[in-house]
Amino acid sequence: MSRFWSPLVHQLTPYVPGEQPRTPGLIKLNTNELPYGPSPRALKAMRDAADDTLRLYPDPVSLSLRTALGKRVGLPADHVFVGNGSDEVLAHAFQAFFAHKAPLLFADVTYSFYKVYCELYRLPYQTVALDETMQVQIEDYNQPCSGVVLANPNAPTGIALGLDKIRQLLEMHQDRVVLVDEAYVDFGAESAASLVKEYANLLVVQTFSKSRALAGIRVGFAFASPELIEGLTRVKDSFNSYPLDRIAQAGAQAAAEDEAWFCEHVEKVKASRERLSAGLAALGFSILPSQANFVYIHHVDRSAARIASDLREHAVIVRHLKGERTADWLRVTIGTDQQCDVLLSVLRDILLRND
Amino acid sequence: MSRFWSPLVHQLTPYVPGEQPRTPGLIKLNTNELPYGPSPRALKAMRDAADDTLRLYPDPVSLSLRTALGKRVGLPADHVFVGNGSDEVLAHAFQAFFAHKAPLLFADVTYSFYKVYCELYRLPYQTVALDETMQVQIEDYNQPCSGVVLANPNAPTGIALGLDKIRQLLEMHQDRVVLVDEAYVDFGAESAASLVKEYANLLVVQTFSKSRALAGIRVGFAFASPELIEGLTRVKDSFNSYPLDRIAQAGAQAAAEDEAWFCEHVEKVKASRERLSAGLAALGFSILPSQANFVYIHHVDRSAARIASDLREHAVIVRHLKGERTADWLRVTIGTDQQCDVLLSVLRDILLRND
Repeated sequence: MSRFWSPLVHQLTPYVPGEQPRTPGLIKLNTNELPYGPSPRALKAMRDAADDTLRLYPDPVSLSLRTALGKRVGLPADHVFVGNGSDEVLAHAFQAFFAHKAPLLFADVTYSFYKVYCELYRLPYQTVALDETMQVQIEDYNQPCSGVVLANPNAPTGIALGLDKIRQLLEMHQDRVVLVDEAYVDFGAESAASLVKEYANLLVVQTFSKSRALAGIRVGFAFASPELIEGLTRVKDSFNSYPLDRIAQAGAQAAAEDEAWFCEHVEKVKASRERLSAGLAALGFSILPSQANFVYIHHVDRSAARIASDLREHAVIVRHLKGERTADWLRVTIGTDQQCDVLLSVLRDILLRND
Repeated sequence: MSRFWSPLVHQLTPYVPGEQPRTPGLIKLNTNELPYGPSPRALKAMRDAADDTLRLYPDPVSLSLRTALGKRVGLPADHVFVGNGSDEVLAHAFQAFFAHKAPLLFADVTYSFYKVYCELYRLPYQTVALDETMQVQIEDYNQPCSGVVLANPNAPTGIALGLDKIRQLLEMHQDRVVLVDEAYVDFGAESAASLVKEYANLLVVQTFSKSRALAGIRVGFAFASPELIEGLTRVKDSFNSYPLDRIAQAGAQAAAEDEAWFCEHVEKVKASRERLSAGLAALGFSILPSQANFVYIHHVDRSAARIASDLREHAVIVRHLKGERTADWLRVTIGTDQQCDVLLSVLRDILLRND
């Protein structure tokens, strides 16, 4: 408690990100980064941008980057928004679109930052339970709301919905914004960016942190109708005129333009995911069908918390989320095949050991 | 108007930053950037950081950078906060500390983003008039308030207050946060960082955008008691876990550690400011006594708007702010001596010309 804080601050329960360990040598499968470095073209663009022009403010509207991002999906720059990581884009979107009387709807098991944004902006929300197979049932969202937020693929489950389901949601709530958080979309799901021209209420959010291997430069983006982009921009320009620095803008644009690197590395992750899933199944794990760069797994004989701490002792870190429906599960990022092999080998030892 | 926007969004009047022109060759004296490139050590650190580790998230708490910043002023890292430019630090501070019943106080002529933050977070505010010489009178702040925000030196005036006046304010409002925005402090004013250990209600905000010539990488920071730092951190962690990217953290730290570069370039700007002021006075301008990297000037015979547009025709851009008390004034960034000479020469031509 502090006499200086705004009352709101006492009520916040901030988001706790996965650990960024300072000890070297760990196999880090806990925060869904790519196991490969980013596009060499992106690295070169960033090194080139580290020059005397850094004395100048960046382009406040990131026009060149937004144009490049839009081009990939056939949208002009006025349909594109960028921010300091997709977390910032999400924060602005929650403030810009979801302050209405009815509650915001999102799944009970999903990205846990959503409820933190609701606290930060004092937005009423209502979670909607995934079914017993951890799937989203769109019909359950047919209720009065200030909007809907849907991670697709969902995290931590990895399960993706088809665009037919997204359309159903958009039709269901034509006067409310449907935010589709596509942080993991590139690993096998279909992007709703193709629906942006058709639905003025659709906001699609993506990131450079996963499929572009650029978590370290903090760039997220969104596709939507100009009406929604303007709403986001009004909030952004009331918060920080220059959210993306010069180097990040240059690096993100070069990464967006390197399709060859992108396709190659996404395919690599998908192949490793199938290989790892087979190995985990052979060890007795249940694995949800993942379209993301992680798998969500469960072992019938051994507690997830115990497995996580045993793995940690063997220098492998994975993500264990507390909570009624998630405590029995582990989220494991897809590493290189070599890292996956170490994981499987350590798991085998752990499971064979007597309790 | 949009049916999708939160009601708040319709009421926002976003901040409009100074122009970042796309046309090359302009003499850009409008947004108070340094006319010199940043520390070569900072540039090298950023190039070195552009490697495969960018696949990983940055340190969410920027511990190494905060430690380096604290060291310069004799404070441990728990007295230091960092953000994506000082604008983000300010935004978090407004939300974290100023949501109380009484109004927030700040000058009628000051950084115009302050009232935008108040709109964004729906904070009541009350402006306090500068006196007729454009000076802050501390006694005028002796009224019930949710806090005080004071730019020192003030912008756009450039006028600085001594620490005795800051102490007076801190004593006056011991249960409220006094935010001292020191964006321009390094060019001749005294920093209140030395008072942080003494006053739990003091928040000092600084930036790399001016005296460190790194506006392009977006790093701002604050010094305060751990109680205030914790309040800021709770808001930050409810908004974006990773506000500073890896390259920005590396570059800012190297810049903070390059004292030789810093001293040399700050002195250069101060010398150019005196030189330019003398030249402007010779042309009949009134110049407020500036401790910043800009001067605020006024000409008795010619409208400021007219001078600004005439300068623009000659490829020199300065900042003209609308508003009752500022419309007769121009804010001119201190450029290189060569740029200042061009400015003076163009001004001479403009003033000699018949209307």
